[in-house]
Amino acid sequence: MADVPNVLLAHGGGGRLMNELIESVFLPAFGNPLLDQRNDSAVIDLGDRRIAFTTDSYVVRPLFFPGGDIGTLAVNGTVNDLAMCGARPRWLSAGFIIEEGLPMETLRRVVQSMQHAAATAGVQLVTGDTKVVDKGKGDGLFINTAGIGVIEHPAAPAPAHVVPGDVVVLSGDIGRHGIAIMSVREGLQFESAIESDCAPLAAPVMALLEHGLQIHCLRDLTRGGLASGLNEIAMAAGVQLDIDESAVAVRDEVRGACELLGLDPLYVANEGRFIAILPPADLPRALDVLGSDARCIGAAGDGTAGLVTLKNRLGVARVLDLLSGEQLPRIC
Amino acid sequence: MADVPNVLLAHGGGGRLMNELIESVFLPAFGNPLLDQRNDSAVIDLGDRRIAFTTDSYVVRPLFFPGGDIGTLAVNGTVNDLAMCGARPRWLSAGFIIEEGLPMETLRRVVQSMQHAAATAGVQLVTGDTKVVDKGKGDGLFINTAGIGVIEHPAAPAPAHVVPGDVVVLSGDIGRHGIAIMSVREGLQFESAIESDCAPLAAPVMALLEHGLQIHCLRDLTRGGLASGLNEIAMAAGVQLDIDESAVAVRDEVRGACELLGLDPLYVANEGRFIAILPPADLPRALDVLGSDARCIGAAGDGTAGLVTLKNRLGVARVLDLLSGEQLPRIC
Repeated sequence: MADVPNVLLAHGGGGRLMNELIESVFLPAFGNPLLDQRNDSAVIDLGDRRIAFTTDSYVVRPLFFPGGDIGTLAVNGTVNDLAMCGARPRWLSAGFIIEEGLPMETLRRVVQSMQHAAATAGVQLVTGDTKVVDKGKGDGLFINTAGIGVIEHPAAPAPAHVVPGDVVVLSGDIGRHGIAIMSVREGLQFESAIESDCAPLAAPVMALLEHGLQIHCLRDLTRGGLASGLNEIAMAAGVQLDIDESAVAVRDEVRGACELLGLDPLYVANEGRFIAILPPADLPRALDVLGSDARCIGAAGDGTAGLVTLKNRLGVARVLDLLSGEQLPRIC
Repeated sequence: MADVPNVLLAHGGGGRLMNELIESVFLPAFGNPLLDQRNDSAVIDLGDRRIAFTTDSYVVRPLFFPGGDIGTLAVNGTVNDLAMCGARPRWLSAGFIIEEGLPMETLRRVVQSMQHAAATAGVQLVTGDTKVVDKGKGDGLFINTAGIGVIEHPAAPAPAHVVPGDVVVLSGDIGRHGIAIMSVREGLQFESAIESDCAPLAAPVMALLEHGLQIHCLRDLTRGGLASGLNEIAMAAGVQLDIDESAVAVRDEVRGACELLGLDPLYVANEGRFIAILPPADLPRALDVLGSDARCIGAAGDGTAGLVTLKNRLGVARVLDLLSGEQLPRIC
């Protein structure tokens, strides 16, 4: 970092540069046991109960895209970060940074999307803030949401609980959110519109926990896609993750769009998919709870800590690296 | 609002237009009992304990000013919103929206200020997020903080508890934050630099509560200054507030700068001052706890609900209105 004098777009991309920024600027200043968990949310022990607390800002461009908008994203993204700690999402805050001149009708549409998404996810928006910046000093609308969830189960999924032998389950097909955004930006037309997978994930996570499954770790796939999520867990857990590419579902139209755009679907953003890491004994029940789109895609091993390997259809394995940034800036 | 097609700078100014935005766009969509409290924080009942939850985004320009920077502001502003609900501030989140090209050194300085302010206020920064937007689509750095506080006392200060006869206490002199910002923006030089009053307010509030005083309502003075804070409370509480101008402390250099700039100090922003509304019987002890800078500046009456009057040194009273926006945009 010493040789990077200015912040680059890639520092916000969820990849290697962002990790370096966190490790060289944020952690040295703020470091404390809760922040050092490096989980999607901080788990706070109130003595008689535990809550989860998380935040995300949303700067997606364009504001509206097939399958959602910045409002659905701002609610579901934060709901999902809470769910990944095993918490039931309950209360959200919303901070709006509006560029002067934004059509009032645009704001209304986004607010209605947020309320619809909040109702669907079972959360309440309980506090908020509005700031307006001069024209040319923003980009229409940025939204920050923070969220509080209540941990109702003794399990506390976290990378530290992953052990060699655990299996990796992926909840559905990947890459649709990123491609939905790209199709609008690039003006691409597909035979059938590719819609974002943006969705709240609290219900499937709560179902896994209520069935008493031993969920060691959960991670929703956002910036940087499946590959980045796997790399983050492998590093934080100190295990090797071996993934079978043929088990990872990618819809034909997403694969086609990725070929056209020169993108690797393994790195394309999602907003409604997650991985669950659990003991093999619980795998059949987990797949049963998650439904027919879920697949076991690999396992944790005690090879090289922090390494993710991908075995292709021919059985040849390669290293699945963390990219320096995001293939698609401002995807969320 | 029907006749305002686009968002204006004044919609973020903490005045009448912002109230209209909240009432016509946000409350109709999100309305729920917690949001409808219209307090600085939402008070959430977890069954066995109560927590306060709040958020604010900070878009102050310039990033650094005499007495503080966007980092101190981002910590203290949220700490203060929690304290105003009688909560002890404990945990903060931080969301950074960085414009590509921001010097890494600027980010480091701000982060260090945040950590220093957090340590001073006794809070921990436990979760965060970083987004980077393209050059020209932001303004250096915006920060959102959300915060959680724990309510340790049975009292729950809120506008609804204000009753006619209550007295209004102001914790110190007003207008320094706004003037500190303006002096940098306008390149003004004063004989002695005017520093922002930016400070955490949890300690004096906790002291009031620990002394068992009946605090009916608390409000920190931010955008829109003392006048806006008083108007918000008068409206939310349904009382008239009668203020004695001669009791409101304004430092000579602030008064001079205001005359030069054509500003009314009653509307100039603060970031480390608050008003406490309490029964007259508790006034002597409250002034004793708050120290020599605190003053009783007026009282609540049952005249016209929502009205604030200001009696000048000659005994002539005038209405102290809510402005449509903020005299100084992007003050916090």
